[in-house]
Amino acid sequence: MSSSSTLRIALDAMGGDFAPQNEVAGAILALRELRTSEEVVLVGDAHRIEPLIVGKTSGTYSIEHATQVITMEDSPTAAVRQKRDSSLAVGMRLHQEGKVDAFVSAGNTGAMLSASTLILGRVANVSRPTIGTFIPAEHGVCLLVDAGTNVDCRAQHLYEFGVMGSIYFEKIQKKKNPTVALLNVGEEKSKGTEVVLEAFEKLSQSKLNFIGNVEGRDILKAKADVVVCDGFVGNIVLKFGESVPGFLRSRLTDVANRSILNKLAVGLAKSSLRKALGDLDPNVAGGVPVLGVNGVAIIGHGSSTAVGIKNMILRAAEVARAQLNKHIEAALAESVGASQPVN
Amino acid sequence: MSSSSTLRIALDAMGGDFAPQNEVAGAILALRELRTSEEVVLVGDAHRIEPLIVGKTSGTYSIEHATQVITMEDSPTAAVRQKRDSSLAVGMRLHQEGKVDAFVSAGNTGAMLSASTLILGRVANVSRPTIGTFIPAEHGVCLLVDAGTNVDCRAQHLYEFGVMGSIYFEKIQKKKNPTVALLNVGEEKSKGTEVVLEAFEKLSQSKLNFIGNVEGRDILKAKADVVVCDGFVGNIVLKFGESVPGFLRSRLTDVANRSILNKLAVGLAKSSLRKALGDLDPNVAGGVPVLGVNGVAIIGHGSSTAVGIKNMILRAAEVARAQLNKHIEAALAESVGASQPVN
Repeated sequence: MSSSSTLRIALDAMGGDFAPQNEVAGAILALRELRTSEEVVLVGDAHRIEPLIVGKTSGTYSIEHATQVITMEDSPTAAVRQKRDSSLAVGMRLHQEGKVDAFVSAGNTGAMLSASTLILGRVANVSRPTIGTFIPAEHGVCLLVDAGTNVDCRAQHLYEFGVMGSIYFEKIQKKKNPTVALLNVGEEKSKGTEVVLEAFEKLSQSKLNFIGNVEGRDILKAKADVVVCDGFVGNIVLKFGESVPGFLRSRLTDVANRSILNKLAVGLAKSSLRKALGDLDPNVAGGVPVLGVNGVAIIGHGSSTAVGIKNMILRAAEVARAQLNKHIEAALAESVGASQPVN
Repeated sequence: MSSSSTLRIALDAMGGDFAPQNEVAGAILALRELRTSEEVVLVGDAHRIEPLIVGKTSGTYSIEHATQVITMEDSPTAAVRQKRDSSLAVGMRLHQEGKVDAFVSAGNTGAMLSASTLILGRVANVSRPTIGTFIPAEHGVCLLVDAGTNVDCRAQHLYEFGVMGSIYFEKIQKKKNPTVALLNVGEEKSKGTEVVLEAFEKLSQSKLNFIGNVEGRDILKAKADVVVCDGFVGNIVLKFGESVPGFLRSRLTDVANRSILNKLAVGLAKSSLRKALGDLDPNVAGGVPVLGVNGVAIIGHGSSTAVGIKNMILRAAEVARAQLNKHIEAALAESVGASQPVN
């Protein structure tokens, strides 16, 4: 952190589908909720950002000019290397140089991942940085990690996802020693692919609160606080889950079209469902940190609203204060003799 | 088939959680709908089966006595080898000997899988038998294959699942040349694990109506008729999906508890949802065939109702008439020069 009392959060003001409008509006909202010593640094085209913020906040902010923008269509790794004056690259370098304590972007997810690994580097003892996503469950939440970052994984990677996920869950959800499980096709120890069987052994021997295997049906029950899987499975489960509300709406519309009475019932059903599934809105979640990189890099949904951006900035402050990386490095150091990080 | 005009379906009368009651009741229902030349063979404890069926049907049936039962707790492969006089093993042998044209069981799924492979053997050119499950989508259905049978897969296996799934979809859904896609983390050709990348190549070069990659969110949209994945992913997606209605009910109950008005709305919401999701009931689906074994082996849900059992028997008749295996053998023979079956 730049100092013990202040915290500076940089925001990619040009990332996101509705940038810089939503980005700046979100920063203004965040400044109302941050501590007075805390500051937002807006990174991007100063000529476009300034008119949106001047006179609209009493909080502390500054603008860091950047001439380029990485778009959603850019190839992630190439864009980070080539667009050196993009808001994303400039913001990440500010963080790497210690001038800010966190960097937040709702821009190109792949570019954020690449930039955070390339520019910030990995935490000692981490083989592969990862991303975990909180899934609202019947009661409470469940952290699915890896949520899509690493598709081909070895057992050591899955083990490290468990360690990083456990620390992240503990700090953000304020729950000591959260339960960790491996996502598998059955609860028995003998189930799963070769990689998963080996990961089971590593997790069993760790200091984590490992409760064994859980199945696909256990995610929405939050049978474990942290559910570990490779990014191939994580991506598919999350995207499948995201498609469920649309599927339900479509099915309910079919029912409504059968009769007037159905139409009334379905109208109420849809509004009840909206209430019941309110926390599935990605704007509530406030983005996700890249776990295992040397810093605090928070990635948000491209379609983030101003409230979504605000929640990302507040999440960044929370993650920065929690000093996750110190804990991750220490936890993995304990096991590093037995299992070296692998690529 | 035992002859061109008759069809004999054997039923494991002792499989399932409510056997032999539901099994026999289902057979009686099926006999009303089968053609008059078609016959059901009930396999199991004759002393328990007889009183449930005598005088209750004018259809053609017979009872094949078997003294043992494979339970849900039995270890699949061991049970098939050790309980040689179980209804499941006896029924499968009747089929292998050509005395019946299909065998149906709502018993131990693993044992059905083992028995069908061990006793019937594989269709020529098939590396690994598989199971596909129809998923009701926004419009139409989507066949997810493999649905959980083979957790560790190579590219050749995924390719064969595509071939078998395509033939199964075509025959059962009566749709010529159904679309086939690979379940992946993105639509781009460059996405996925090494195995998936290789499978993409094999599927591209095949005669299938291969449309490329689809994502988790595309399943419930039935963006492809047949969606190919390994059994690890298939199992997790299916079980996750099965947990969604319970999750919704629980969330809706929370909303209902907030006010009287909500309670009314939620009551209507739940009944609308029941109507909207009616076809998710496994009893409607009527079980799934093991694709790629030398015969027709249909596996059903342990909790099958009499209607569920009836639908399994009718599905078995349909699959037997369609002569899937002849088509599978021929389709894989075309590609067998380039890619030998692998274990």
